[in-house]
Amino acid sequence: MSPQKALDVVFYPKSVAVIGASSDNEKEKLWWVGRLQTFGYKGKIFPINPRAAEILGFRAYPSVKAVPEEVDYAIFNVPAKLVPPLLAECQEKRVKIAHIFSAGFAETGLEERIKLQQELVELIKKGPTRVIGPNCMGTYCPASGMTFNINFSKELGNVGMASQSGAVLINLVPYANSRGIFFNKIVSFGNALDINAAELVDYYADDPQVKVVVTYNEGVQDGRAFLRAVQKCAKAKKPVIILKGGMTKGGMGASASHTGSLAGSAEIWKALFKQTGAMPVETFDELIEQIVAALYLPYSSGLKGRRVGILARGGGPGVVATDTIERAGLLVPALTAETRSHLAKLTPADAGSSIRNPVEIGIGAFGLSENFAEGIRRVAADPQIDMLMIVISAHAYAHMGVGANEMLKAADILIQTAKTLSKPVIPIWTAGGSVESIAQALKAREVCVKAGLPVFSSMENAAKAIDKLIRHYDYMDSHTLN
Amino acid sequence: MSPQKALDVVFYPKSVAVIGASSDNEKEKLWWVGRLQTFGYKGKIFPINPRAAEILGFRAYPSVKAVPEEVDYAIFNVPAKLVPPLLAECQEKRVKIAHIFSAGFAETGLEERIKLQQELVELIKKGPTRVIGPNCMGTYCPASGMTFNINFSKELGNVGMASQSGAVLINLVPYANSRGIFFNKIVSFGNALDINAAELVDYYADDPQVKVVVTYNEGVQDGRAFLRAVQKCAKAKKPVIILKGGMTKGGMGASASHTGSLAGSAEIWKALFKQTGAMPVETFDELIEQIVAALYLPYSSGLKGRRVGILARGGGPGVVATDTIERAGLLVPALTAETRSHLAKLTPADAGSSIRNPVEIGIGAFGLSENFAEGIRRVAADPQIDMLMIVISAHAYAHMGVGANEMLKAADILIQTAKTLSKPVIPIWTAGGSVESIAQALKAREVCVKAGLPVFSSMENAAKAIDKLIRHYDYMDSHTLN
Repeated sequence: MSPQKALDVVFYPKSVAVIGASSDNEKEKLWWVGRLQTFGYKGKIFPINPRAAEILGFRAYPSVKAVPEEVDYAIFNVPAKLVPPLLAECQEKRVKIAHIFSAGFAETGLEERIKLQQELVELIKKGPTRVIGPNCMGTYCPASGMTFNINFSKELGNVGMASQSGAVLINLVPYANSRGIFFNKIVSFGNALDINAAELVDYYADDPQVKVVVTYNEGVQDGRAFLRAVQKCAKAKKPVIILKGGMTKGGMGASASHTGSLAGSAEIWKALFKQTGAMPVETFDELIEQIVAALYLPYSSGLKGRRVGILARGGGPGVVATDTIERAGLLVPALTAETRSHLAKLTPADAGSSIRNPVEIGIGAFGLSENFAEGIRRVAADPQIDMLMIVISAHAYAHMGVGANEMLKAADILIQTAKTLSKPVIPIWTAGGSVESIAQALKAREVCVKAGLPVFSSMENAAKAIDKLIRHYDYMDSHTLN
Repeated sequence: MSPQKALDVVFYPKSVAVIGASSDNEKEKLWWVGRLQTFGYKGKIFPINPRAAEILGFRAYPSVKAVPEEVDYAIFNVPAKLVPPLLAECQEKRVKIAHIFSAGFAETGLEERIKLQQELVELIKKGPTRVIGPNCMGTYCPASGMTFNINFSKELGNVGMASQSGAVLINLVPYANSRGIFFNKIVSFGNALDINAAELVDYYADDPQVKVVVTYNEGVQDGRAFLRAVQKCAKAKKPVIILKGGMTKGGMGASASHTGSLAGSAEIWKALFKQTGAMPVETFDELIEQIVAALYLPYSSGLKGRRVGILARGGGPGVVATDTIERAGLLVPALTAETRSHLAKLTPADAGSSIRNPVEIGIGAFGLSENFAEGIRRVAADPQIDMLMIVISAHAYAHMGVGANEMLKAADILIQTAKTLSKPVIPIWTAGGSVESIAQALKAREVCVKAGLPVFSSMENAAKAIDKLIRHYDYMDSHTLN
């Protein structure tokens, strides 16, 4: 069996055994049998518990070996010390995948537990059962109904993720969903004794359903294999976004006690990013913004350079917006004389508002004017400009008593105007501090996301993410596509 | 009259003339006469309009000179070209302050308008009328009812601000309010032909109602005077926070067309920060976080070093939180063996959660446990730790069906426990992406702010702001206090 085939079973197992399912249905409802059942897993479920005949309506078996059918995927919810003998049993039964949820191995730092992990490593080598974990959450795959969290979305997306941490996903997945990002496949792989980031990234490179690949790594188990896998994604024109945890002294210590990982030096990671065009991010917020950039500004989006035309309320906010964008590596050039003379007809010349760039056209204190769409078109037509950012403050509008309708009207004009342009149009809805203004901004963002526009949470985040995306495309142009 | 006295009138004028008040009451209701009236300005209001007898119930006069009483403060809402003759009239009338709201001077870049501004400069020298502007919003002072925005808060705070831009304040003030920041005095001073940042900062240094001083500058008109004023604040133990706009190439161009400012080199500004201990910030979001730090972690707060103890959900989030904090310049040291042995009693040793730091005690997936307060106390007692950050994810809790009550319970425990500790306790409520979770996080933040805790919008923002604050206190220790 090729490794490729083995990983198919990670996502689409025909049967799942839950080793250590509780005989208390109320309890197990919240655990693995309940999760699969509630989330709508379509395959067979075999609860394993020597003291139960039935669990949540499924016939229970005293052991994996006692299951009279093939077991594709076994979830281990047992104390760490019981893992090796139960894994040996799975190997005999020729279970294809063992997901060891159980923690308590090398990550504890305890000598006895490090030995236990070493025992497990030796056992895994005997095969044929491939292992996810230990100390991890396993598979989320909405297409097959595999999940470790019943509240995760069932919507099928096009992001594939390999995460050494499961806890990060509890925040990340729903927040990503709210930003228009949906996942196709995720594996939380913990201590990574067998299946690891390299193998998962390699799999995603070949997976036609995955368009963007994301990893959260603490250590890397096989540096060369990981490098090759990321390069394979580049060849397949799939952007790879990597959040590497444990890059500071304190972070290294924390990752050692989390997944027992050796963090690897910052230099090695820098070299990897240089050799692959993969995009590094440092926080989960940055990760989300970078996925937005990769999904909503794909290579085909017409994003050809780093010169930004800004439409926003003018004055000081425009000055600071310009600084923010240029600090992130993009440019805010002056517009051509031709564009400015067109814009001058749309705005009073001595109003203190600027027609230089940032441009304040049609975005008044009390809502939009009829010049809003024309302002966008004129700036987009300027040959100095590669993309547009339109900044609208829900907070200021809510504060001035401009209703939610004005925000949705703005969103609609933006969407309709963007359709007629070949350059990317990037709406920035700043949310402010009140529940009312935030709700309005979220609604406007949602409408724009559904229309396929790249929606970032702030101008700073947009600029940082787009700068990295352009570097990635530059890499693609100079390497993969030649 | 000393300049000090002159600036008193900026904030507490006994009478205000509005030059260019509209004879259309519906229109003027939204403009200067209406603003003062609605906001509750207690002094006399003299609308100036040759074609009106009464405006919004106030007797109108054909000119400033026609007003039979003293005029402390005159607001100019007239075309730029009318400003010089009308200012000359104010000088004759011995008006104390002229706030020239009118734009259309050097910031337009037009030769004729640059000449007009020069004419104004020469006229101002004749005195005695001191000038705010042109091209600006003037005074906001809730104590006297002076404002340029009727929706601004009437709550009296202890922040004094000098802002070259008025537009920035429309977002900044209400957002600041939502973060527990209230202002005592703000002047938006635009092109700064007379009254400028230096003079305002100097005034705030002496003002007993102002505890924290904030400036938004594009250029600086008198570098030495500004330096002296900031140093005076340091001597008065008032933190100064400076957002300097126009620090990039594009930003310089934008600021030239905004307030006609020459931006000044980055080196000069760096030198100023070094010589004064003032805290530089780069965005308005950073500005808010830095004010939170200065207000809620004052010199007396017991913040003595940069070592952070973190209580949070463990695993990957803890690793990345550690990296984030250490990248910002703070430290996340391992706890002592003694603390760890205490913590081990509160948590199962092999649960994969860490007792190293970050610590996962009492913050479960489904809400808090009874160990939450004890966990905080134990970490606070560790001699390796100077401050605590407690991270609670409203998004994860909302997602897991943990209600708003659990968040408020957590806030209450935090507040009660913090009261018993001498080290700062910093709650971080991460908000996520749904209106529900954001509303819960805002509520929990509000409760903590009201109890006087320093509440930041993210761990990253907290760490950056606190790092700068500690540098500021280090400066104070080595300069001012010796």
